[in-house]
Amino acid sequence: MLLHFTKMHGLGNDFMMLDLISQKVRLRPEQIRRLADRHRGVGFDQLLTVEAPERHDADFKYRIFNADGSEVENCGNGARCFAVFVHDRRLTHKKELLVETAGGLLGLKLADQGQVSVDMGVPRLHPDALPFLAQAQATSYALQVEQQTYDIGAVSMGNPHAVLRVESAIQAPVETLGPLIEQHARFPKRVNVGFLEVLDRQSGRLRVYERGAGETQACGTGACAAMVYGRLRGWFDEQVTLQLPGGHLQIHWAGPDQHLTMTGPAQRVFEGQIYL
Amino acid sequence: MLLHFTKMHGLGNDFMMLDLISQKVRLRPEQIRRLADRHRGVGFDQLLTVEAPERHDADFKYRIFNADGSEVENCGNGARCFAVFVHDRRLTHKKELLVETAGGLLGLKLADQGQVSVDMGVPRLHPDALPFLAQAQATSYALQVEQQTYDIGAVSMGNPHAVLRVESAIQAPVETLGPLIEQHARFPKRVNVGFLEVLDRQSGRLRVYERGAGETQACGTGACAAMVYGRLRGWFDEQVTLQLPGGHLQIHWAGPDQHLTMTGPAQRVFEGQIYL
Repeated sequence: MLLHFTKMHGLGNDFMMLDLISQKVRLRPEQIRRLADRHRGVGFDQLLTVEAPERHDADFKYRIFNADGSEVENCGNGARCFAVFVHDRRLTHKKELLVETAGGLLGLKLADQGQVSVDMGVPRLHPDALPFLAQAQATSYALQVEQQTYDIGAVSMGNPHAVLRVESAIQAPVETLGPLIEQHARFPKRVNVGFLEVLDRQSGRLRVYERGAGETQACGTGACAAMVYGRLRGWFDEQVTLQLPGGHLQIHWAGPDQHLTMTGPAQRVFEGQIYL
Repeated sequence: MLLHFTKMHGLGNDFMMLDLISQKVRLRPEQIRRLADRHRGVGFDQLLTVEAPERHDADFKYRIFNADGSEVENCGNGARCFAVFVHDRRLTHKKELLVETAGGLLGLKLADQGQVSVDMGVPRLHPDALPFLAQAQATSYALQVEQQTYDIGAVSMGNPHAVLRVESAIQAPVETLGPLIEQHARFPKRVNVGFLEVLDRQSGRLRVYERGAGETQACGTGACAAMVYGRLRGWFDEQVTLQLPGGHLQIHWAGPDQHLTMTGPAQRVFEGQIYL
């Protein structure tokens, strides 16, 4: 069958968007892997499928699949692309959406100039939430890596994050220290690693080494985790702009037990049709 | 304006195909670079534009651009995609085409099952054609690289090729020896480097380190150069199947002063529309 799709990106994190409300099709993992091939297929970081919701209080349901065909829970860049996609395709006119995802219900809001705000939920700070092996919950922890000790934050945004403050994000040892922390014995399910440079109380630079993927252009949950750690340490006000390699994200967080809001761009690239 | 395009590949070498006969547009190098971006654009190894011919004896003209916006002369994989593209779009019904390219006139022939034969011209064997610094033309040359001496062939297919016979293509030192030969002082304009394993008189395995690009999935001119060297050395019959990492190519060559014919697949992947 002929499948219609849209290619989009959020800060360089690129998605094949599929409307499975008007197109009835079920993709097998090997089909997703073929579509993901950047030379012989469409090529994408993730596939995002829009479906009818199961819950009566949700507007839509969406699912996100990695290029290897496995389903993933949470992706801030994908959420923003989703919101712009359903408006572009006139599947809704609502500016505020409540969406079912594999990670739970998600609130989205379309702002001006292609910007979308995503309710990223309440960060979980207990070590068990990551999991992270520690005696008790703390704002920061001393982590020993090859004879060196680093001060890190440990934050769960649905997925686990370690955050480390650095003098310079550009010069941060992302490719060397990143994998050592990612696979550290105290993170039994591994961890995403953020290298945060604090510029002032409203801005910072961030690079993220993603679990199983290496350094990425823009990790939305990583930006939230960096904000949480920076705010708990007293470095940030409640509204911060983080500069990631792929572009800027605005994060708002009042403090513990409050929801984080992440605001950033989503860009349509092209429309396509492919035979399955 | 809204641009219609087709994404295709030949043995994993992928192309954005543009019909500039029915769409009147001139692309600037910075637009090509934006389109080439695999995350924020369409993504391709090369852009191929189909245009009306200037010569009265040609059916079409096409041009090929690298992802950096520069124009290139010759590409066997692109030529095969071109032939399938103009038929798919019903720009012609002819099975044999004569096409204007930056490298001169090119003869193409559509065969069965999506296979296309390309007349790759007559190989040039004089060292000056590459250029290669040698006292006189020979079938093979002794090339010294870091205290080791290698027997190589030197063939121009419009672009320069060095070919080296190896015991095993899989174990060949493509990433280490490749760049050393590519930048060898005896190749003043650098050179593509082929590592050829001879299986029998009708087949071989080939890996190619491409000038400025590193190892590629399937280099058409590299396959021709390997055939020429193998045949001049007496290892091959006049019809040979070469297995490249991206798939198979059939090469036919009767011998010196004769045209080479390369036959291989071209695959349409998807149709797309993008605003310029």
